[in-house]
Amino acid sequence: MHCREVEFYWREFEVEVLFEGIHMDEMKETGEKTDGAEVAGSDVTRRGFLKKAGQGIIAVNAATLLTGSAGAQHVPDPPGKKLGWAIVGLGNLSINEILPAFARCEHSKVVALVSGHPDKAARLAARYGVSPKAIYNYQNYDSIRDNPQIDVVYIVLPNGMHAEYTIKAHQAGKHVLSEKPMANTPADCEAMIEAAQKANRKLMVAYRCRYEPFNQEMIKIARSQEFGPIKVIVADHGFSIGDPSQWRLKKDLAGGGSLMDIGIYSLQATRYITGEEPTEVNAMMYNTPGDVRFKEVEETINFQLRFPSGALANCSSSYGYSGENRYRVIGTKGWFELEPATGYRGQRMRIRRWDVTEEKDIQPVDHFASEMDHMSQCVMKDISPLTPGEEGLKDLKVMMAIYEAARSQKTIEL
Amino acid sequence: MHCREVEFYWREFEVEVLFEGIHMDEMKETGEKTDGAEVAGSDVTRRGFLKKAGQGIIAVNAATLLTGSAGAQHVPDPPGKKLGWAIVGLGNLSINEILPAFARCEHSKVVALVSGHPDKAARLAARYGVSPKAIYNYQNYDSIRDNPQIDVVYIVLPNGMHAEYTIKAHQAGKHVLSEKPMANTPADCEAMIEAAQKANRKLMVAYRCRYEPFNQEMIKIARSQEFGPIKVIVADHGFSIGDPSQWRLKKDLAGGGSLMDIGIYSLQATRYITGEEPTEVNAMMYNTPGDVRFKEVEETINFQLRFPSGALANCSSSYGYSGENRYRVIGTKGWFELEPATGYRGQRMRIRRWDVTEEKDIQPVDHFASEMDHMSQCVMKDISPLTPGEEGLKDLKVMMAIYEAARSQKTIEL
Repeated sequence: MHCREVEFYWREFEVEVLFEGIHMDEMKETGEKTDGAEVAGSDVTRRGFLKKAGQGIIAVNAATLLTGSAGAQHVPDPPGKKLGWAIVGLGNLSINEILPAFARCEHSKVVALVSGHPDKAARLAARYGVSPKAIYNYQNYDSIRDNPQIDVVYIVLPNGMHAEYTIKAHQAGKHVLSEKPMANTPADCEAMIEAAQKANRKLMVAYRCRYEPFNQEMIKIARSQEFGPIKVIVADHGFSIGDPSQWRLKKDLAGGGSLMDIGIYSLQATRYITGEEPTEVNAMMYNTPGDVRFKEVEETINFQLRFPSGALANCSSSYGYSGENRYRVIGTKGWFELEPATGYRGQRMRIRRWDVTEEKDIQPVDHFASEMDHMSQCVMKDISPLTPGEEGLKDLKVMMAIYEAARSQKTIEL
Repeated sequence: MHCREVEFYWREFEVEVLFEGIHMDEMKETGEKTDGAEVAGSDVTRRGFLKKAGQGIIAVNAATLLTGSAGAQHVPDPPGKKLGWAIVGLGNLSINEILPAFARCEHSKVVALVSGHPDKAARLAARYGVSPKAIYNYQNYDSIRDNPQIDVVYIVLPNGMHAEYTIKAHQAGKHVLSEKPMANTPADCEAMIEAAQKANRKLMVAYRCRYEPFNQEMIKIARSQEFGPIKVIVADHGFSIGDPSQWRLKKDLAGGGSLMDIGIYSLQATRYITGEEPTEVNAMMYNTPGDVRFKEVEETINFQLRFPSGALANCSSSYGYSGENRYRVIGTKGWFELEPATGYRGQRMRIRRWDVTEEKDIQPVDHFASEMDHMSQCVMKDISPLTPGEEGLKDLKVMMAIYEAARSQKTIEL
């Protein structure tokens, strides 16, 4: 049943689009969640919000008790220092995942919203206790520099806008967490990294899976070589994409098709599991003739990678097939896998040692809270995030090589 | 637990080798099964054998009763016409799978054995009721022409010997079932096909999975388009190969490495699932430096295929990783998969329709009995086998293209 949730959440991973026409189409897709309970009326006070947040935390600890990992009810400490966050773009991802996740954060609080839709922003501000004065739009975005409450800006816009709004945020003296893919091109990524350096601010890419325990455990198992050297990784990510008018299918907004959006999870997995950079890439692409969804971007692009240690990867990425979300790591002594692997929740891990297969149960966390708190702590302690801009740039370079391999029908060396 | 069996049987898939030195090494691998109960002493009479066989059949029907698919005990009819088979090569596969399978055959009986090891042949002949006069060796092999009891010859030799012994059998006027891969080269396959045509005899390749109900059901689902058009097939086959001196690791005997032996199952699956021939191939190969097992043949070779309908396949093939034996077919509306997929037994099928995953239970059969009876019936009815020599040739051509793609680092068009 949690599989159902994962797919549901994949489908609703929508970020705000600034252009009215596209936005309206997206709102149709958003459906019940946008109109539903989470977007409450303005009668929700800041006090009410904090109370809800507290209940949420207690619920988590109650679950912990049930699993036998604690002996007594844990009442959380009063909050310590929390950094202030501005959320840029109020699409589904922000509404359904990011804003609710602040209730789970120890070091992060939402203090500002940036949106092209004043009504929506006002409703969300009321629900999440954001001051009406801290609601911005894309015309007065630069004035976030004058709001000292904002420490970190989270860019939740279509891919093609990440660079512009990240650079502007850095120029306003803010730290930035950008959604993935970091940008449409390596050049944009480099400009973002340069802007962060110039402003002496942190830049992190929202590679959520690095901040949740199932994928972290997979990395730990890989590094331990418990299953011997890694020989092959098989990773599959994709879903059947809906509305043909959505921004993901526009080349200038999305940068590409399934690879940029969902295939990047396959690529990321191979890189964080091996801890290495690929040296060679093969690829094969397919667009269904006449399918209006794939006029500008690719439907399916499958790729092969070679890593310096000798590990090879076979990855698929598709907007055409039904939901796939898995990767298996095959060593000389067995395999370990996640399926679902990289959704917002519902991860399941299976491990095979020779001829016995086991499921490994891990206590999940809120991925977004974990990710945002990591960023806040990096800022507070002045250390580099685990997934800095340079990490996003590496993926972009490999993705460009994947496209080139498919086009040229040759192995591309990196 | 049946997974354990599958892997075990993969490891023991050994065919007889004619060279004494290599053979002895193989016998070490064979271990308990060769020395065990199935190779009984000469006190096992034909009558004893038939009794055992009868018990086996009753046991199967008892299982059928338990699953509720029959209302009364089914006592099989007395045998109708059965064709006589000669088994060429008495390695593990013959000893542990093929010879016992005759007890499940309706149209096939073993009447002759061909082996370079007279003692072993005599023991097996006694167990399976084969006349001592119908034991041949590789020196007097051609004299099978003088034995009218032999209708079909089953070639269970190392790959590099399939062509020679198939052609000789056809020249002796016999029908031939050859193990896979059909031969080391397309040229050898063509010579075999020509020999069959010249002799006006049937030639079939032992693509066992085409004769068992799990893979047959996968094909049926694929053709029905119940899950929409096939977008991607992911197939993984391999195991960690043992003894470095075995014939599978000798280029002249095996023709190649993991691809020829086990990766061919990935390739076959993509071809019988789509019902199409691939038009393009990419590949990436890896041999662990200094690993004595891979001096002559490849360890891992992963490949990508494109089919005319637009389906793409990502396949892995390895002698280096732990046991993999699976394929998943991903359509627009869900996926269907087998894991284990192609072992001698233990298949499991899972189907995912949108967000619900189900296991589909199918009554298994003895793959070898089904395969041999298909061949016998084709001979009796004078019709072409489902997997004739031409089918083996097609795989060989694609495998040569896979090697060429890996070598040239380019997409090879077929």
